[in-house]
Amino acid sequence: MKLLRYHSASGIRPGLKADDGTLRDLGDYIADITGTELGRDTQAKLASLPLADLPIIRGEPRLAPCVGNVGKFLCIGLNYRDHAEEAGLAIPKHPILFLKANSAISGPNDPVVLPRGAEKADWEVELGVVIGKTAKYVGAEDALDHVAGYCVVNDVSERSFQMDLSGQWTKGKSCDSFGPIGPWLVTPDEIPDPQQLALYCDVNGKRMQQGHSGTMIFSVAEIISHLSQLMTLHPGDLIATGTPPGVGMGQKPVPVYLKAGDTLRLGIDGLGEQRQHIVEDS
Amino acid sequence: MKLLRYHSASGIRPGLKADDGTLRDLGDYIADITGTELGRDTQAKLASLPLADLPIIRGEPRLAPCVGNVGKFLCIGLNYRDHAEEAGLAIPKHPILFLKANSAISGPNDPVVLPRGAEKADWEVELGVVIGKTAKYVGAEDALDHVAGYCVVNDVSERSFQMDLSGQWTKGKSCDSFGPIGPWLVTPDEIPDPQQLALYCDVNGKRMQQGHSGTMIFSVAEIISHLSQLMTLHPGDLIATGTPPGVGMGQKPVPVYLKAGDTLRLGIDGLGEQRQHIVEDS
Repeated sequence: MKLLRYHSASGIRPGLKADDGTLRDLGDYIADITGTELGRDTQAKLASLPLADLPIIRGEPRLAPCVGNVGKFLCIGLNYRDHAEEAGLAIPKHPILFLKANSAISGPNDPVVLPRGAEKADWEVELGVVIGKTAKYVGAEDALDHVAGYCVVNDVSERSFQMDLSGQWTKGKSCDSFGPIGPWLVTPDEIPDPQQLALYCDVNGKRMQQGHSGTMIFSVAEIISHLSQLMTLHPGDLIATGTPPGVGMGQKPVPVYLKAGDTLRLGIDGLGEQRQHIVEDS
Repeated sequence: MKLLRYHSASGIRPGLKADDGTLRDLGDYIADITGTELGRDTQAKLASLPLADLPIIRGEPRLAPCVGNVGKFLCIGLNYRDHAEEAGLAIPKHPILFLKANSAISGPNDPVVLPRGAEKADWEVELGVVIGKTAKYVGAEDALDHVAGYCVVNDVSERSFQMDLSGQWTKGKSCDSFGPIGPWLVTPDEIPDPQQLALYCDVNGKRMQQGHSGTMIFSVAEIISHLSQLMTLHPGDLIATGTPPGVGMGQKPVPVYLKAGDTLRLGIDGLGEQRQHIVEDS
């Protein structure tokens, strides 16, 4: 299933993208797509609903973040071998963790707003993993049982905030609108192996990032296992698993950063595509 | 007012600590102590209630985190000049920011649970600031208008997770139970100047931390202003403003870390006291 959330006149409602390409409303069956509704039981119930029972969502709704009420937004840094080399940083021995503020989360096609003072805003297409079942001290061999689904994440990053404002990356990662997630939360039955996915990001129509989750230093299962040794992962938690090469910071001969008017288009095999316009904050 | 949340047979309920020392239930007037209930209007309404209308909470209830549904848990590092020196780190030019996972939040007197593999768990008494009114691009001169109240925070830290597991402090800051907050959320009318507060932390009855918020490198107002340039601060967001000298990592001749059976007692002028037992995870 491809679960989604969309803006309606009455607020954000849950839905899905059906195999026939239509968007269908799920509001009669679940309150929202959040941690409490992400278990395998609920997924099985939703999957068994006859399509005819689900009202078609008319028009072109504005999509909301594909998961609501995210508990924590965990991000792995430098998780693609070639991206670490691009950034001139050593291959880490353990997954590098930082957190993104939940208030950065935005819809997959919402504008990316450059905050005042931003000079080095950058793109990062990433495979997002949403937890569906509580995980604590989980081994890698069982870790994928705890996944509710996968989604595209753009881990938008302001490199001057991240690097030049006294330590800890989170400053450049947490600006409002710097966390587009979606369009869909795709359930694991459609993604049998999260290490077999191609990722891309185009900036103004030019392919800048192209990668493959098979080159991750730490697999999705290893990341979940590692994080679960440190803290409990709860349903509704989101993990962004790092970005492949091609970010703006790594461009030669000089870095390339986002400016107002630019457009981003990024996607992952089977998980759909995001499109964002870059705008300046007022 | 000293607002609180407590565990009852029917779940967590809101309350306050009255001037006569009794704990009173607020469940007839507000649903909870969360971002949506932290505005000055609500505070004024609660302050106007006749004490006789508020049922006394009998017994000795287990206190819950003094704010529920925290949006983001922002932490400032190295914000006391003498603590930065103790840690052997340069005085930062800007407030150092990291995030603590919301799932680390616990009640003020709940046990601190050492996760498996923890070797260097440490204490950090800190002044916590809870946002009551949305803040974006706020100047320091107006910043305190956005404060709903203040509380004690123990920014419990596992130094080996923080330092030895490949970068970014958040790994050692986000373990379950590593964020006791409370006992009370004290409204600003009782704390006219957040830079005039003494802080302390006792470990097994011995005073280890003693400090004063007047020696902060960046004041509460400056911190709010700075963070609000980077991202929107929403009602219910929590900022821990750094810790004074005396953490275990800084002890001479050798560091001292927490072990099962230890007890912590920490407090701040006018904000009450926390007491925690240290236990091992099962």
